[in-house]
Amino acid sequence: MALTPTPDDRFSFGLWTVGWLGADPFGTASRVALEPWDYVQSLAELGVWGITFHDNDVFDFDAGEATKRARVARLKQACDETGITIEMVTTNTFTHPVFKDGGLTSNDRGVRRFGLRKVLGAVDIAAECGASTFVMWGGREGAEYDGSKNVYAALERYKEGIDAVASYIKEKGYSLRIALEPKPNEPRGDIFLPTVGHALAFIAELDNGDIVGLNPETGHEQMANLNYSHQLAQALWSGKLFHLDLNGQRGLKYDQDLVFGHGDLLSAFFTVDLLENGFPGQPDAPRYTGPRHFDYKPSRTENMQGVWDSARACMSTYLHLAEKARAFRADPRVTEAMEYAGVNSLLEPTLTAGESLADFLAADDSFDVQQAAERDYGFVRLNQLAVEHLTGR
Amino acid sequence: MALTPTPDDRFSFGLWTVGWLGADPFGTASRVALEPWDYVQSLAELGVWGITFHDNDVFDFDAGEATKRARVARLKQACDETGITIEMVTTNTFTHPVFKDGGLTSNDRGVRRFGLRKVLGAVDIAAECGASTFVMWGGREGAEYDGSKNVYAALERYKEGIDAVASYIKEKGYSLRIALEPKPNEPRGDIFLPTVGHALAFIAELDNGDIVGLNPETGHEQMANLNYSHQLAQALWSGKLFHLDLNGQRGLKYDQDLVFGHGDLLSAFFTVDLLENGFPGQPDAPRYTGPRHFDYKPSRTENMQGVWDSARACMSTYLHLAEKARAFRADPRVTEAMEYAGVNSLLEPTLTAGESLADFLAADDSFDVQQAAERDYGFVRLNQLAVEHLTGR
Amino acid sequence: MALTPTPDDRFSFGLWTVGWLGADPFGTASRVALEPWDYVQSLAELGVWGITFHDNDVFDFDAGEATKRARVARLKQACDETGITIEMVTTNTFTHPVFKDGGLTSNDRGVRRFGLRKVLGAVDIAAECGASTFVMWGGREGAEYDGSKNVYAALERYKEGIDAVASYIKEKGYSLRIALEPKPNEPRGDIFLPTVGHALAFIAELDNGDIVGLNPETGHEQMANLNYSHQLAQALWSGKLFHLDLNGQRGLKYDQDLVFGHGDLLSAFFTVDLLENGFPGQPDAPRYTGPRHFDYKPSRTENMQGVWDSARACMSTYLHLAEKARAFRADPRVTEAMEYAGVNSLLEPTLTAGESLADFLAADDSFDVQQAAERDYGFVRLNQLAVEHLTGR
Amino acid sequence: MALTPTPDDRFSFGLWTVGWLGADPFGTASRVALEPWDYVQSLAELGVWGITFHDNDVFDFDAGEATKRARVARLKQACDETGITIEMVTTNTFTHPVFKDGGLTSNDRGVRRFGLRKVLGAVDIAAECGASTFVMWGGREGAEYDGSKNVYAALERYKEGIDAVASYIKEKGYSLRIALEPKPNEPRGDIFLPTVGHALAFIAELDNGDIVGLNPETGHEQMANLNYSHQLAQALWSGKLFHLDLNGQRGLKYDQDLVFGHGDLLSAFFTVDLLENGFPGQPDAPRYTGPRHFDYKPSRTENMQGVWDSARACMSTYLHLAEKARAFRADPRVTEAMEYAGVNSLLEPTLTAGESLADFLAADDSFDVQQAAERDYGFVRLNQLAVEHLTGR
Repeated sequence: MALTPTPDDRFSFGLWTVGWLGADPFGTASRVALEPWDYVQSLAELGVWGITFHDNDVFDFDAGEATKRARVARLKQACDETGITIEMVTTNTFTHPVFKDGGLTSNDRGVRRFGLRKVLGAVDIAAECGASTFVMWGGREGAEYDGSKNVYAALERYKEGIDAVASYIKEKGYSLRIALEPKPNEPRGDIFLPTVGHALAFIAELDNGDIVGLNPETGHEQMANLNYSHQLAQALWSGKLFHLDLNGQRGLKYDQDLVFGHGDLLSAFFTVDLLENGFPGQPDAPRYTGPRHFDYKPSRTENMQGVWDSARACMSTYLHLAEKARAFRADPRVTEAMEYAGVNSLLEPTLTAGESLADFLAADDSFDVQQAAERDYGFVRLNQLAVEHLTGR
Repeated sequence: MALTPTPDDRFSFGLWTVGWLGADPFGTASRVALEPWDYVQSLAELGVWGITFHDNDVFDFDAGEATKRARVARLKQACDETGITIEMVTTNTFTHPVFKDGGLTSNDRGVRRFGLRKVLGAVDIAAECGASTFVMWGGREGAEYDGSKNVYAALERYKEGIDAVASYIKEKGYSLRIALEPKPNEPRGDIFLPTVGHALAFIAELDNGDIVGLNPETGHEQMANLNYSHQLAQALWSGKLFHLDLNGQRGLKYDQDLVFGHGDLLSAFFTVDLLENGFPGQPDAPRYTGPRHFDYKPSRTENMQGVWDSARACMSTYLHLAEKARAFRADPRVTEAMEYAGVNSLLEPTLTAGESLADFLAADDSFDVQQAAERDYGFVRLNQLAVEHLTGR
Repeated sequence: MALTPTPDDRFSFGLWTVGWLGADPFGTASRVALEPWDYVQSLAELGVWGITFHDNDVFDFDAGEATKRARVARLKQACDETGITIEMVTTNTFTHPVFKDGGLTSNDRGVRRFGLRKVLGAVDIAAECGASTFVMWGGREGAEYDGSKNVYAALERYKEGIDAVASYIKEKGYSLRIALEPKPNEPRGDIFLPTVGHALAFIAELDNGDIVGLNPETGHEQMANLNYSHQLAQALWSGKLFHLDLNGQRGLKYDQDLVFGHGDLLSAFFTVDLLENGFPGQPDAPRYTGPRHFDYKPSRTENMQGVWDSARACMSTYLHLAEKARAFRADPRVTEAMEYAGVNSLLEPTLTAGESLADFLAADDSFDVQQAAERDYGFVRLNQLAVEHLTGR
Repeated sequence: MALTPTPDDRFSFGLWTVGWLGADPFGTASRVALEPWDYVQSLAELGVWGITFHDNDVFDFDAGEATKRARVARLKQACDETGITIEMVTTNTFTHPVFKDGGLTSNDRGVRRFGLRKVLGAVDIAAECGASTFVMWGGREGAEYDGSKNVYAALERYKEGIDAVASYIKEKGYSLRIALEPKPNEPRGDIFLPTVGHALAFIAELDNGDIVGLNPETGHEQMANLNYSHQLAQALWSGKLFHLDLNGQRGLKYDQDLVFGHGDLLSAFFTVDLLENGFPGQPDAPRYTGPRHFDYKPSRTENMQGVWDSARACMSTYLHLAEKARAFRADPRVTEAMEYAGVNSLLEPTLTAGESLADFLAADDSFDVQQAAERDYGFVRLNQLAVEHLTGR
């Protein structure tokens, strides 16, 4: 039985998700576009709390100022009327061919300046709409051929661009934080900042990195052959999990953007467990407190009925996994198995408080190597308990 | 025709490379072990400049102090006699089952303390041998199951461990730098610090990060579906390319450790181009100045003849690619194509010197979107020139 | 709550699964070996129905005839006493370095003859033990380098070898069928017959292909980026699903051999659904009727407790997924959604019975392209029903 | 220096290759369309021998009969005038949303009938244009969700469809052969007949399989983590290599369709070696005798200049690799290394002519296991010779 969300669940959707028309590299659109405010109305009816959008989800690339303002205003009004929050806004610097070599790292300086202006314009819209997060996905910042880019210079320009945007936010006094969205490839052969790790490392070099964090997407990290909940964990460890994009991906192929839970279901369970329950045994560790944001595409085989069914499915599955994750954590067998596995013993520092390295080296731990080598960690049993909770036993 | 290296080329090999006996997950050894000093002798004859080793490449896991000292001394002597430099030393915290859940991030605190002591012991050996780099590959620091690890705590313990090692190096006054080696998986299902990006982000959080950098391995990054020379570039951009492991990998599968150039040859060309020629148009940009270190495995189908042939092949190919990369950079057609592609224009800041954001937003760039959208970047032609240089036309 | 199997469930395990000692490419054994008959005793206690083994799981590579016979006899006796069926036997032509370039396709004819004799010896053992299936996994039949193998000749020799084994089975009058096990790579860079498709195509060229079919392994097909249940389906369509190896794999990496269900759980659900319920709407379509055979490895972090826990987990999860798959098929909402999706309409031939191509081309279908283009297939909703059944709602 | 092709080289290009406008999943077209005959004119000037096309590369999906005929006639005329051969024709059953669930395996029978009619219409055009090959890429024949397809029924319908097309060709007396093009995924999550192996296995079940073979594409097989030249070899072994699609792919990601040689260059070398020189030591083994057909996409960053440059690059690289492959085969060091590696010894049957299995088992080969286990195959040295030839030493 499907669970029904309420705004308290803080689910949000990109307008480009339910608004995806089904065009793919080998096919044209299979659905017709609604107006942005029509999507808002329907999402509100589903129990959604918030929406997000790119500038060009609301107005055309070449729209004039008046049109831009009118359409954003109308969208805001629709949100106000339906109680929907505009929680995040972002810029489209990838669809128009002017950005074919990137927005902030194009080899063409004119394009870079044009791209930066477009981003700053979207920042104004974000602030105006009361969004708290400004996502930047640099899908075209990359290359197909090693020789075509000086990657050092590209990172310099990327830094210049992101620092400029952050500086603008500060100058304007907007209460916005930037969230970078990594992706390893597609539409470029290799995208700069391909994973959560690369983006965290990049942020550490920024001048205005204090308001720059991450927006990790399930499928993007999996396209780099990585474990998504490990990515969330390292982002939290670095204090940078500002936003997220939940969806589904079935392995190393094109960006599928499936419904959340329709990809790697076991990983989805642990993702929700981390988001809802935090790190085990660590009530004080950083937690993700932002919206539960879905960035998925309703399959091209579906019409509008399928669009709404799939949006519902994302939320329903999240709510069910959350229930299951709570039951998992509350199960005394799980507590016992985590104890047996030493999960919480990892909280204890390796060195004793006040122990110098000299003391440590001199200490006699009476460590029995052979016994430790033979220890049963019970990891498989613990994982099986997770599978049992997930599958409802 | 194969090119013959000299010590001036600063090629180095791990003792575990030519010393790999051919045991794999489905087969036992196909070669017999030589003594460490015998490998040194043969490598010297090939024109190799340096060697590197894990503690247990030289003495057994349970060797007594006297044996350890005697064997390290004998190795050093062999190196001295043959003019071989011991440029890097590392610790084996992965072979013995005591490390089955990791060395520095094991869920067993006793193991973590044992692991840290083993690492510090190897640091002493590294210093004693005059090595300049201390590599740390945490191959067992990871998990197969999300529930079995608190990844936040694991990163805390990893940080504690690396900071302790760095602190020890500083306390002792050793002139050693630590180089972390990322890998996405194998032997664990998911390894912490899976890519160059993650390790750079981790270093940014260390207390003693100033002497901690990276040792990126070709195949490891490719196992995360990433572009190796982009990894080197970001490491250089962060000032952290301390060492490297060159080898070959053919796509997303087990860690192959093929001869350098026997994997993705076009990527190998651009790797050498970056190492030898630096970033284009940027004579002052950071350069890699360390050894050209190979971490490969002679195929199990070969006996000792094949071991030496394969070591020679690594070096010969590197030298040839270096020649080709120099010719590539010197070719006026390449200069013209890079100009056409705007490669060097990426060096120019997007904002004009002194230009405020307000000025920038107010400026009239007279940018022609349509013209820029239609620009021919000539990336394919430039890449084709690289292919032509690589294939000797 | 874990479900407990009985012999009626026909679960079987390879002796090499529970008997895996934990040695991997970077580590030595973490468990000690039991005798084959000891594993049999414990498996019987878990409710297992059958076992399978390689010749060298029971006796050493260089054992004499008397030893071989004595150990096989003792194993058979243990099976008889515990009611365990020996359902499949296979040959190890991969561990010993003599097979480093393959058993039946080695470039060394002496090795090929030696390998073929070893296989025929194992066929005799299989027959003697009353096995019904003789699996052949050619893990070493492959290459790292394109130039080192004439693949045409390799396929000729492979055909010669398999045909010889099949011919021997026929000559001897054994009631054995051969099941080829595909794998894309590991331990070779590229293995011949990398997927179910390649093996089916190969069988179609055999002289004795009538008794040769397939033993598809979950993880092996997933290592080729393929959908496992699609593989089972094509094998059934070709009438060649003779046996199978169930386990878990988390994406494109080394062969993980995880517990069944600990990899892609949604795929595991549909695998069990296909095995237990057959193709939807087709009671007469071919069904798999063989043992539910697990080929997995208890994680190296576990000791014997973990070995038995993990074997239990494989079976318990299978039984639970079978229950869920039955409920899925019985759910009227699923019936309705499958109808809506047109799943059963695919059973209807495209051409009407007796319709010639000329008639077909002349017929007026009054097909409304636009309406068909807009059809909602409801695939996402149907998949969501599967997720809901799987997660116990 | 680039090599210039002539029609004798029998290079051919799809009209959709140079005609690709640069629209991708995240971006709109970056180039404008020319008329089909304009591409023909330019290709002829480059030294191209032939072209290929989908029906809808020449006329719109909803074009009337008169328009279809007029445009095909005009294309034919342009080909005649420029001496260009139309060597292959194919049908587009993937772009229009009516095909969103497939053409021949859609769950909607009306679509299947419509799809089959469209295919038969294209067969007539192929025959009319004098093409020798009719390629069928079933890019939409597949599924995202296991539950949404009865794969057995899908293979039945696929067989029905292909057999119908083959039957039509025979009835009409056309001298056309069908070539199936496998692909593992994209645009569907899992495509039926995902690899060369699956397609060969499928053909073996057809009623009219005698005129059905394969059109393997470099990147498609690599997207299934497979070795392309192994795929060509198995297709040749089964007598089914009817046509091919050469291009470049950089690992497991979206379908890149790069210039031939801009992906895995070492694999490209061995591909050309196989195509030009056949299997080593086997002058009588099957050879590929069809066109050298490129199916690539000029990068979206390029305008028409880049389109022609990239088409030239495909051919120039092929010609250079062919030269190198000839030199490789002619090099006495290679002959010696192949001998040393036992490459030609694989041509010798494992059983002696006339040797029965009983004789074989009774024979004393005096085989020295240990010696064979220690044999040096010299595979690395042989591969290094290939690398040296490829890189022009």
